[in-house]
Amino acid sequence: MKSSTKAGWQLDAQIERDTVQVGDLTLCRVRAMNDATYPWVVLVPQRVGATEIIDLAEADRVQLMAEISAGATALKDITRCDKLNIGAIGNLVPQLHVHIVARRRGDPAWPKPVWGAAPAQPYAQHTLAAFVESVRQTLGIV
Amino acid sequence: MKSSTKAGWQLDAQIERDTVQVGDLTLCRVRAMNDATYPWVVLVPQRVGATEIIDLAEADRVQLMAEISAGATALKDITRCDKLNIGAIGNLVPQLHVHIVARRRGDPAWPKPVWGAAPAQPYAQHTLAAFVESVRQTLGIV
Repeated sequence: MKSSTKAGWQLDAQIERDTVQVGDLTLCRVRAMNDATYPWVVLVPQRVGATEIIDLAEADRVQLMAEISAGATALKDITRCDKLNIGAIGNLVPQLHVHIVARRRGDPAWPKPVWGAAPAQPYAQHTLAAFVESVRQTLGIV
Repeated sequence: MKSSTKAGWQLDAQIERDTVQVGDLTLCRVRAMNDATYPWVVLVPQRVGATEIIDLAEADRVQLMAEISAGATALKDITRCDKLNIGAIGNLVPQLHVHIVARRRGDPAWPKPVWGAAPAQPYAQHTLAAFVESVRQTLGIV
């Protein structure tokens, strides 16, 4: 199934609960995971009905790669992390979304992936706001 | 760090042990994970020194997305899986590699990711050969 255009697209309710708004890029809505354990952003292509990367049209896939790269570069610049973990999984939330997580050697899940690890530890409000603002500025979202 | 060209590139020894050869695409070496639990391929961009997607030049990133899409489409066509899981993690093996895993509701790790789950269950030899051949044919690797 090829996904449709942005019209009528809505953010999945579970993603909305777990994350906060950063801003929109050309294709993706950028959200920050409310988990103080890991600097973590989620890119959600604004395409109705897409659950897999291969549901996207080819031009959207190219744009997705550009936005993944921008998000990964931003997280790396902000955090000076040891490793980036990037994944499109979606076993629980079918709406296509791509995780970009900044990892450090010795962080609580290291060297395992963060998905399916311990429950999120919500940020203090001002710390979350500062993280979101740094991502927004690094991505050039106004 | 931007990665270098194919000259001098060598497959990481751990990836070599865990997988078997399928063939080469324009950018990536395609390997099949020797784990009968999940149909699973690994794409390894043949670029010296790349550990992150953002280490690749932009043209290589576009090519990587095309090859991820080809690999994902092949696995979906072969397995009729319920979900594809795609990830670039590399916490244990630094050489950049992208996992594409065909998942079924109710498979042993479902709905968790397969990374860090139970140890691989090696295929019977002829079953592995048949899986590799089906991936090779679907990808048009001669």
